[in-house]
Amino acid sequence: MTERTVFFVSDQTGVTAETLGHSLLTQFGGQEFRQVTLPFIDSVDKAKEVVAKIDAAGESSDLRPIVFSTLVQDQFRSILAQANGLHLDIFDVFLAPLEHELGEQPSEAPGKAHGMSDIDAYMKRIEATNFALANDDGGVSRNYDMADVILLGVSRSGKTPTCLYLALQYGVYAANYPLTDEEFESGKLPDFLLQQKRKLFGLTIRPERLRQIRKERRAIGKYSSAQQVRFELRETDKLLKRYGIPNVDTTEFSIEEIASLILESTGVERRVRP
Amino acid sequence: MTERTVFFVSDQTGVTAETLGHSLLTQFGGQEFRQVTLPFIDSVDKAKEVVAKIDAAGESSDLRPIVFSTLVQDQFRSILAQANGLHLDIFDVFLAPLEHELGEQPSEAPGKAHGMSDIDAYMKRIEATNFALANDDGGVSRNYDMADVILLGVSRSGKTPTCLYLALQYGVYAANYPLTDEEFESGKLPDFLLQQKRKLFGLTIRPERLRQIRKERRAIGKYSSAQQVRFELRETDKLLKRYGIPNVDTTEFSIEEIASLILESTGVERRVRP
Repeated sequence: MTERTVFFVSDQTGVTAETLGHSLLTQFGGQEFRQVTLPFIDSVDKAKEVVAKIDAAGESSDLRPIVFSTLVQDQFRSILAQANGLHLDIFDVFLAPLEHELGEQPSEAPGKAHGMSDIDAYMKRIEATNFALANDDGGVSRNYDMADVILLGVSRSGKTPTCLYLALQYGVYAANYPLTDEEFESGKLPDFLLQQKRKLFGLTIRPERLRQIRKERRAIGKYSSAQQVRFELRETDKLLKRYGIPNVDTTEFSIEEIASLILESTGVERRVRP
Repeated sequence: MTERTVFFVSDQTGVTAETLGHSLLTQFGGQEFRQVTLPFIDSVDKAKEVVAKIDAAGESSDLRPIVFSTLVQDQFRSILAQANGLHLDIFDVFLAPLEHELGEQPSEAPGKAHGMSDIDAYMKRIEATNFALANDDGGVSRNYDMADVILLGVSRSGKTPTCLYLALQYGVYAANYPLTDEEFESGKLPDFLLQQKRKLFGLTIRPERLRQIRKERRAIGKYSSAQQVRFELRETDKLLKRYGIPNVDTTEFSIEEIASLILESTGVERRVRP
């Protein structure tokens, strides 16, 4: 077996180790990796089990495992270091220069990495999520006064996941409103949106991509036809131009990137940091 | 001014640099930081602007800025390195050992870090998000056959944001069902849930925390009264015990951690990696 195993080892969720690891591994396209996340490694026994797993993976392959880890406590890092693999630990590398620069000893307290017991941040994210749900797809509350941003776009342009991501990740209040025949026929946006004009932001997408996405939902019929998709996107462009609404073509972007582009473009302040 | 500025510089969204930086900085509780994210730094001009911003921040403070960066291309890293600050770049540190281990040159292609043009992953996350929305709060579709996991808990125990996070981050199909007087009075779960018993997972929470959260929603009345909250949580415990449903006390955890604990505890496989 010549597949290489990559371990993400953490005393917390493993999200930091995974994020770091993926950023690096995508630089090496010629490889196949089997990925294993081992979260909540917070005891000597668990750390020893991790070592056994890494060594077992190494012995069953010709290729040495790679280990991305974020272990705050020295004692667990020392145990992990006994495993036979390429070790990349952000605390090993970055803690010493930070300690020197800041003139402070690191607390070695795990469980702070994602501010879990920060009730204020938790509440802000929950409230923002509830706002996104209540103001999804032009729906229910239309509480646009409170919105930080209101996304406009046709069906399946990515409005809902982007709003939810903005809420969960950044605590931003994001509403969304679907552009449909009503707007296309009148060539106008409704007044309640124009009253919030500086909050409006458009999501566009290339026709072939939108068709592909819509076909997953409904393979046949007008909804995913080339003609309909082109019509809707052309009309969307006209509306965005008419009102000078900033927008982004989402075709090449992930949800994270769309969210980040919106914050960057609008200057909306995040209420929470990850 | 003695506040220290921390920069997160990226050719992409900055999420990796932020995640890394926060994990490290939370180890140093005695400091105040001003945080600035500078995403999409993908040209020489933009890189030079970043240098100017860092130097300006350094000159207006007694404290040298800290710079977390994830710049894939050497040329931008070299420009950034000219800024006066403590530089912590994951590519600088980790790329060389990976290159050596893997025997492959890094592609230096930015924009791969979050798999943005991966339509398959995008679709899976969107579909999972739509599933979570349609199966939120016991609602609408009750399409529990398709669920990977079904979360149970009282109002405001964190079900909805956890389901959405599982969908957006991991592409996992997560439904949720609220425990209310109906279940507490009968002492039973409905049949359509028991038919999916191995998918059930409970969210519990300590009474004082639940009261605090509910008071944000409705400050007075039965909903956030100490008696009601204690009653609902006691009955929830009874139900979870009666059916032997695994569960987690969410009081001390962030949304990310709850999601990660659920995957860890249930063994549900993620459909997407970040």
